Formats: sequence, structure tokens, C-alpha cells
Amino acid sequence: MRNVLGHLLQLDLEELIARGAWDELRRASEGLTPQDLAEVIIDLPPNDEGILFRLLPRDRAAAVFSYLPIEEQTELISALSNDQTRELLEGMTPDDRVALLDELPADVTRRILDTLSPDSARATRLLLGYPPDTAGHSMTPEYVALRPEMTVAEALEEIRRSTRRTETFSTLFVVDAEGRLQHDLRLTTMVRADPTTRVGDLVERPPVTISAKASTEEVIRVFEKYDRTTLPVTDDAGNMLGILTIDDVMDAARQKATEDMQKLGGLEVIDTPYAATPFMTLFKKRAGWLSILFFGEMLTATAMSRFEDEISKAVVLALFVPLIISSGGNSGSQASTLIVRALALQELKLSDWWRVAKRELASGLLLGFWLGLIGFLRIVLWQRLHFSEYGPHWILIAITVWLSLICVVMFGSLVGAMLPFLLRLARLDPATSSAPFVATLSDVSGLIIYFS
Amino acid sequence: MRNVLGHLLQLDLEELIARGAWDELRRASEGLTPQDLAEVIIDLPPNDEGILFRLLPRDRAAAVFSYLPIEEQTELISALSNDQTRELLEGMTPDDRVALLDELPADVTRRILDTLSPDSARATRLLLGYPPDTAGHSMTPEYVALRPEMTVAEALEEIRRSTRRTETFSTLFVVDAEGRLQHDLRLTTMVRADPTTRVGDLVERPPVTISAKASTEEVIRVFEKYDRTTLPVTDDAGNMLGILTIDDVMDAARQKATEDMQKLGGLEVIDTPYAATPFMTLFKKRAGWLSILFFGEMLTATAMSRFEDEISKAVVLALFVPLIISSGGNSGSQASTLIVRALALQELKLSDWWRVAKRELASGLLLGFWLGLIGFLRIVLWQRLHFSEYGPHWILIAITVWLSLICVVMFGSLVGAMLPFLLRLARLDPATSSAPFVATLSDVSGLIIYFS
Repeated sequence: MRNVLGHLLQLDLEELIARGAWDELRRASEGLTPQDLAEVIIDLPPNDEGILFRLLPRDRAAAVFSYLPIEEQTELISALSNDQTRELLEGMTPDDRVALLDELPADVTRRILDTLSPDSARATRLLLGYPPDTAGHSMTPEYVALRPEMTVAEALEEIRRSTRRTETFSTLFVVDAEGRLQHDLRLTTMVRADPTTRVGDLVERPPVTISAKASTEEVIRVFEKYDRTTLPVTDDAGNMLGILTIDDVMDAARQKATEDMQKLGGLEVIDTPYAATPFMTLFKKRAGWLSILFFGEMLTATAMSRFEDEISKAVVLALFVPLIISSGGNSGSQASTLIVRALALQELKLSDWWRVAKRELASGLLLGFWLGLIGFLRIVLWQRLHFSEYGPHWILIAITVWLSLICVVMFGSLVGAMLPFLLRLARLDPATSSAPFVATLSDVSGLIIYFS
Repeated sequence: MRNVLGHLLQLDLEELIARGAWDELRRASEGLTPQDLAEVIIDLPPNDEGILFRLLPRDRAAAVFSYLPIEEQTELISALSNDQTRELLEGMTPDDRVALLDELPADVTRRILDTLSPDSARATRLLLGYPPDTAGHSMTPEYVALRPEMTVAEALEEIRRSTRRTETFSTLFVVDAEGRLQHDLRLTTMVRADPTTRVGDLVERPPVTISAKASTEEVIRVFEKYDRTTLPVTDDAGNMLGILTIDDVMDAARQKATEDMQKLGGLEVIDTPYAATPFMTLFKKRAGWLSILFFGEMLTATAMSRFEDEISKAVVLALFVPLIISSGGNSGSQASTLIVRALALQELKLSDWWRVAKRELASGLLLGFWLGLIGFLRIVLWQRLHFSEYGPHWILIAITVWLSLICVVMFGSLVGAMLPFLLRLARLDPATSSAPFVATLSDVSGLIIYFS
């Protein structure tokens, strides 16, 4: 969908801009959702981007701006006047505004906050006060609060009269005079209820709340579990602070999964799409870990040089080095992939480490035994069929390979499973390059095991 | 939250069951959401599970049942009578019902379909007619359709009188007499509109629809882009068939991300949580790819044996084998991780392969040059500082290592980036063990490059 639509329209719009056909341009953009328009704008040449943007009505400009990637937003901001920036930011929801301010230098953020209306500035400062990656930081403080003593008819009347944006009306929040959340209520339930019922009596389901201090991972987990589209954020005393909506949570979940994959794949986090990431950024994000892993692997050369005498006596030993160390690495990546994902989805907790360790040792033993058997049979067969010549001690070599594989795979699985727990214990992200790091660690230890 | 709640309640419930305190048991379960109750039930001993389940009121039993993992559902089904099974399945939404039937043997599915009411059976057969992993297969055909000529007051009255479950009322669909979708409408908009407006005139935003043939990946992408909670599914003629809701899409996105990670980590897909997966299942899912990769790595032994003479002449050459092949493997995993994720998020399409190939070759050249430089300096330094003794030809060895690293890293990056494209071209999942496979491939070729 995106490509056909995006491509066709982009050509059309470029042509209209070239011709200076402003009215047609305005009409062409009216039939599009803000999301589609945002996609078209991204692909336009920078100059046209600015022109099209200034043509949009104020409300629509803010909506389209919200759907642009953050990098694109910061670029546009630096090209706009203070007044235009203020207008755009006033039109954004507080959570989108904070996501943008997070990426700007501190002095620009301060300057922008000063230009905002007192209401918007207060809402924005409230969110900025919570640490990044918490529910409080990413919530929006705009929601509809009802008093428990209102009737359904009164509440519906208030909703009809309200001038707020309509986004936040599908779930309503019953809040007492002290600001404490009583329960939430779907608009659907209100429409279908007897108009004389008191809102406080319309409890349809046990309330689910999110603490302002909850981490992004916890928020994702609660949304996935309870299948709600909007959840209230409260402080420790149960006071209602704001709401989180499922579309933002879904974006956060996708972002988190991408980051975990990148870390498992031995990369620093790259938060822009592959094609939009500048070549040198990509190089830097890759070179960092690659260099660290390279330094780690240099230890294999050091380790092997200790055994140089053994190798020169039986060169045949060196043949199986890549086979053995890569098996340890592969089993280690498997284990860390499993554990990193299970920790991220909160299927495992820190206290499960001992159960996991026992399990991975058993797994590693069995897997190592199995791979060792294949390796043993391969050596015996090749020797017997005269494909290769492993010298007079070939049976000893075959047994060495088997035993080494058992030890290496057990070690790889154990380290691969325990490293994510250790990283979590140290309050680091368990995904931080676990897999390649584990592979490197097992390479070095694999060599020592093998030659010993 | 889950752990404290789950653990406390589980002890309580077990005790109540042991005492046979049925009334108290019923009351204790009433204050819980179906999701929490489902979590508590999973952790109970199998006998107690059945008892608690039979105690629940019919509606609630179906709701709790919907939140159990599929394995748990199939187990319970085999323990229940035909009548009980029918009752539970009637109470489920069609999409949840189809997800369960997908996992049951064909004859059990047929038997269950025969016991369902004609309406439920028809809805279920409709979904089963679409291939798995399409929008048609996972949609629910239960939605609220309004005619364009209705007034808002009439539509609201109909919603009030309807006996349907309330889940599906927040987004309504305006459908003409031929069954073609005109547009969708939020309940919020209707509540705030003039009661005499015709529903057909209340167009608030350009419609977004999903084709019944759309893949799960496309569905996820459309939901992420448009920030809607419910989207209509239509056939090629634009007829309304059903709806998809964001909670199911979010589950699908999480599942897809987990599968991609497992495949990248060199595992077969494991669709149960780590702790709930039986030991032997885990072993089999790991042993498969590990064996394939092991066979691949055995080629390294074969490749090295060709160079046995060279190695015995200069054992020092063998020292750098692990370093070189792992660098190729690491850069290859980086590239395939980046490309697999970009393809999954549809940031790249098949036709981008040539642009990516050029970019990865350039990346590989630069990364290889950089790592080679480190390797070269390391050898020169160690030699000069007399940490190691690499023989009279040490400068030749250092240059060989450098050149090999450039070639190996370029080759690893290129293969790592191209393999996902090839898999996608062959209509296979690009994630299918790309990373470890690439690593193995670069190990073998790395050796050949190095010794040549």
C-alpha cells in the first residue's frame, strides 16, 4: 500500500509544487490521512517539504508533524521560525511533544518550553520530571475525568459540550474529589446504561492501573495481558496522573524488539530505518562491538600460542579448532537468545537463575554428547574410508574431539544462559550483545578445553 | 504484579479447594479479571484446575478459557465432556475459536464444528476457509454495521437495544445495502454529533481497510502506521467481512518478533514460554539447527586439511584462524540482523537488494580495513615488544592477516545482507537461521581466503 500510494503522490505533489499550483496542492493533500501525508512529505526534496508544510491548515500541520520520525521533526524545527515551532508544538499531544524534546539539546528544549502556553508548558514539565523509559514520562495528562456522583445523562452531556480533541473519549475515568482514581468506564457502557444511573455505580470490571514509575517493559506486559486500549497512570497514593494508549505502547514494543535483536546481533542500537541511516553512523554502530569482539578473539591467538608446541607435533589437532569453538558459540547464542527473550517478556525472573542453570547444564550435556557423537563418527568414518589421514593416534583425536565438544557446548550453554541474568542483576539490558559476547567467550575457553 | 498476585491467590485457592469451600471459592474468583484468573488457573495442580473451572459461571468460564495458552486449552478440552466443550466454544469469539481449532487434530475440529450452533459454525468455517496467517483467518466476523441512511439518534437507539457483547461497539461500520463498506465511525463521534445527522454524512477521516488476503506482517504494519484500535477487513470487491482488533495484532507482533529472534539465534521456533517448554522439546528445537551448522563447520576441517602442509611449515598461521573466521561471522550476523529486521518491518523491499549489496560491500571494506589495521598493529607490536615470536616472516603474516580480514569481512557482510533477500525471494522467512548460517558460511570461505 505505502509504496504505490507514496510513490504516485510524491510525483504528483512535486509537479504541483514545481508549477506553483497551491490550491490544487491543498486539495490533493486533503484526501489523505495524516500518516500517509507524513510518509509522502518524508520522501520529498527538503525544499518542497517546507513549502508543503506551510500550506497545511494549522491543526492538520500538527497532526502530520506528529507522525514524522523524530529526526525529521528536529530538522524541520531548526528550519522554522519560533512562532511556527510554537504553533506546531501546541498542536501536539503532550506525550508526542516530550518524545521530541527528549531528542533536542537542553537549551533548545528550555527555549521551546518558554514559548509554550502556561498549560502546555506545565503538562510538558510534569512528564519531563519522570525518568525516561517510565510510564510517567510517556503518558499523556489529557483524559476525561468524571465524578462518581454524576448521572450517566449528566456525564454524556458534559462529553457533548466538551471542546477537547475526541481521541480520549472512548475510555473515561471516575475520579473522586481528592483526585484518586475509582475505576474506568467505557463510553460504550455509558451509552447503553440507564441515563439516571450514577457513574460511580457503573463498575463493569476490576480496575487495572499502571504506576508512574513502571518501566516500558512492564507497561508493554500489562497492555498485552489485559487487552485494554487505554490504561490510567497513577502515583503511589492512587492519584490519577494521566493515561497511556495502546498505539504508543505498540510502537514502544516494536522499538524494544528491534533493539533487542540488534543487541543480540552484536550491534549498537540504531533507531532509524536501515535505508535512512547515514553510512558513517551505520559504520560506527557496527565497528564498536566488532572491535570489542575482535579484541576478545585476539585472546584466542594468545591462547593458541601457548599450545604451539602441541600443534606443531600434531597439526591435525588444529583442523578441528573452528569446528569445536563454533559449536560452543552456536549453543551459547541459542541459550542467550532464549533467555534474553524470556526475560524481556517477563516469562522468567531473576530468581529463576538456578533452575535455568541446571536446565542448561543438562541441555548442554545432551547437545554436546550428540554433536560429539557426530564428530566422532565423522573422524572414524573418514579415517576408515581413507578420505583423510589423521595419523596413528586418530582414535585418540576422535575421543578428544568428542569430550571437548561435550565440555564446550555445556560451557557455552551455561554462560549463554547466565550472562543475561548477570546483566539484569547489574541493572543493564540483558540483550547487550549477549550472543556474540558469549560466542567469543566460548571460543577462548573452547580452545583451552580442547588443547588441555 | 503478576507474581505477587498469582502466588498469593494460588495458595488461597488451593486451600479453599482442599477444604471444599465452594462458595468462598466462587467469591474469591469474582474480584479478579479473567486474565488474572487464567494465570492463577495455569499454575494450579491439574485436578484443582478442573474443579475451579467447573465452578465458574458460564460466561466467565468462556472468558477465562480464552485467556489460557492454547496448549492449556487443548488439554482442558480433552478432559471435558462434549457438552462442556460446546458451551465453552460457543462463548468464545470466532477468532479465538479458530486459533484453538488450528491446533487440534482435523477429526476433533470436525467433531467440534458439528456440535456448534449453526451461526457459530458458519462464522468459524468462514475464517477457516482463509489460509493461516492472513487477515481473513484471524479476523472476527462480529461487528456493528450501520446503514448510511440512518440518523445518529436511530443508530444510538439500535446500539442501546442490541444484545451483543459490548466489546465491538467503540468503532462502528457504515455499510450500504449491497454489503460494501462506506466508512467507519467512532462511537465518540456519534455521541457528540447532532442526533438528526445521517450516519452516511458523518465521515470524519479517510477510511483504512485491510484485504482479507493480507499477511500478518502487512496487518501489523497497517495497525502501527494508522494508530487505529479496530480496522475493517474487506474482500476484493470492497465487501465488509469482519474486523481486526489491536490487542490481537499486538500479540501477533510479539509472537513474530520472538520467532524472528529465535530464528536469528539459530533455533527452530518455540511457541511456548521457556519454563513451560518440556526439556526434550527444547533439546529437539536446538539440536536440529545445531547439527546442520555442525555439518557445515565440518567443512572447515576439510578445508583446513587441504592446507595441512602450509600449516605444518608455519604453525603460527593456525594461531589466527579463530580470529579471522569469527570476524567474518560477526560482521555477517550484524548485516543479516539489520536486513532481516528491516524486511520484517517493511523498511526495505525485495527490489532494494542491489542498493543494499553496494552499501554492504562498502561497509565491509571499511570494517575489514579497520579490524585488519588493529590485527596488523597487534602482530607488529607483540613482535616488537617480544611478547610473541612469529618467526622471520612476521611482517608477511601481519599483512596476510590484514588482507584476509578485509576479504572475510566484506564477504561476511555481503552474504549476511544478501541471504535474507534470497530467502524472501524463495518465499521463505528471511529470518530462517540467517545469522548462524551466514557465520558458518563465512567460516569456511574465511579459511580458504586466509590460506590462499
